[in-house]
Amino acid sequence: MTTWLPTLKTATPEAGYDLAAKLARVAIKMTQPDAAVRDTLRPVYAEDADALIASSQVVATHFATVAAANDYWSETS
Amino acid sequence: MTTWLPTLKTATPEAGYDLAAKLARVAIKMTQPDAAVRDTLRPVYAEDADALIASSQVVATHFATVAAANDYWSETS
Amino acid sequence: MTTWLPTLKTATPEAGYDLAAKLARVAIKMTQPDAAVRDTLRPVYAEDADALIASSQVVATHFATVAAANDYWSETS
Amino acid sequence: MTTWLPTLKTATPEAGYDLAAKLARVAIKMTQPDAAVRDTLRPVYAEDADALIASSQVVATHFATVAAANDYWSETS
Amino acid sequence: MTTWLPTLKTATPEAGYDLAAKLARVAIKMTQPDAAVRDTLRPVYAEDADALIASSQVVATHFATVAAANDYWSETS
Amino acid sequence: MTTWLPTLKTATPEAGYDLAAKLARVAIKMTQPDAAVRDTLRPVYAEDADALIASSQVVATHFATVAAANDYWSETS
Repeated sequence: MTTWLPTLKTATPEAGYDLAAKLARVAIKMTQPDAAVRDTLRPVYAEDADALIASSQVVATHFATVAAANDYWSETS
Repeated sequence: MTTWLPTLKTATPEAGYDLAAKLARVAIKMTQPDAAVRDTLRPVYAEDADALIASSQVVATHFATVAAANDYWSETS
Repeated sequence: MTTWLPTLKTATPEAGYDLAAKLARVAIKMTQPDAAVRDTLRPVYAEDADALIASSQVVATHFATVAAANDYWSETS
Repeated sequence: MTTWLPTLKTATPEAGYDLAAKLARVAIKMTQPDAAVRDTLRPVYAEDADALIASSQVVATHFATVAAANDYWSETS
Repeated sequence: MTTWLPTLKTATPEAGYDLAAKLARVAIKMTQPDAAVRDTLRPVYAEDADALIASSQVVATHFATVAAANDYWSETS
Repeated sequence: MTTWLPTLKTATPEAGYDLAAKLARVAIKMTQPDAAVRDTLRPVYAEDADALIASSQVVATHFATVAAANDYWSETS
């Protein structure tokens, strides 16, 4: 049985950041499951500063969760 | 006696994410209880990048809560 | 002496969610104490996707607080 | 020596909520110190659903802080 | 060697709030380093309710961090 | 093997703030990988108060994470 989210643990902070970006994208896919529509929207918001900043905010919120789940990768310090 | 939210505990991170999405939807249903109106709104915001990103932000906030409630599913690491 | 917020503790997660929704509404009442004006605004934002999503965000933020106050209802798991 | 914020501790959750609302207002006063201008803005945003919801969001963020500072008023449970 | 942010610790909650406001302003200076441009923008957003509320939100987020860094100034209670 | 995010630990609060600003920028680069497009957007949002405030909000969210990862730089107090 596969899952897109087996764990919040990642080996490195960078992998945690990538996971946060993925967590942000999945909610958008759930609300708009049609990939063709999403492909239409992407070039629009990718050239819109407000949308880019708002996307970055969602990643920031998820990154806080992922970082806490990994105890801030304390062993890499 | 039934409840739509018996617990914040979920078996897996993926199920926790689904619960976060549900938590985001319920507030919208409370404010707009008329399903017919919601059905009218959905296709509009599902094709609007700003609304999709804002929805994803709400899921992110709830996911932080659900993940903390599950101690970040620490035994699945 | 009555209070609208005697405690953040609730018996169940669902009651905690209802409290979060109440906490979101009270700030709006404080800023706009005139119930007649609020009644005028409600049908407008209840049919506006952006406003519904923003409302859901406020509930999400309060729900995080209420859930933490209840230790995530850990005994109900 | 007086201060507008001697402590984050409050006797009750309701007083904590009032403090959160005060914390939200102070930032606005700092950015717009002219009371006459603020008085002009208030009737506008008090009749604007988006502004009311955004204000409620700020209160929610501060309430999370105040509630944590008071250990969620655990002795009142 | 000077720094604009030597510590997150402050003597009082009020000083912590001032630090939060400073933390909010610095990000804006980083993105718009030209003081002349910032001086042009300030009177505009200082008379715009939405911008004032959004600014207050940023202060709220930083205040949560500063308050946690100071253990909510627990000895002042 | 290089990484743009080897650790969340920083020597000082100021370096932590810079890291938060970097974390905010990276998400924008991921969504809009074309540097030429980003260069076109930057002067626009750098003169837009709403975009500047929204950017500052993203930095604030990341700063909360970085500060927690560094235990609020408690030894610098």
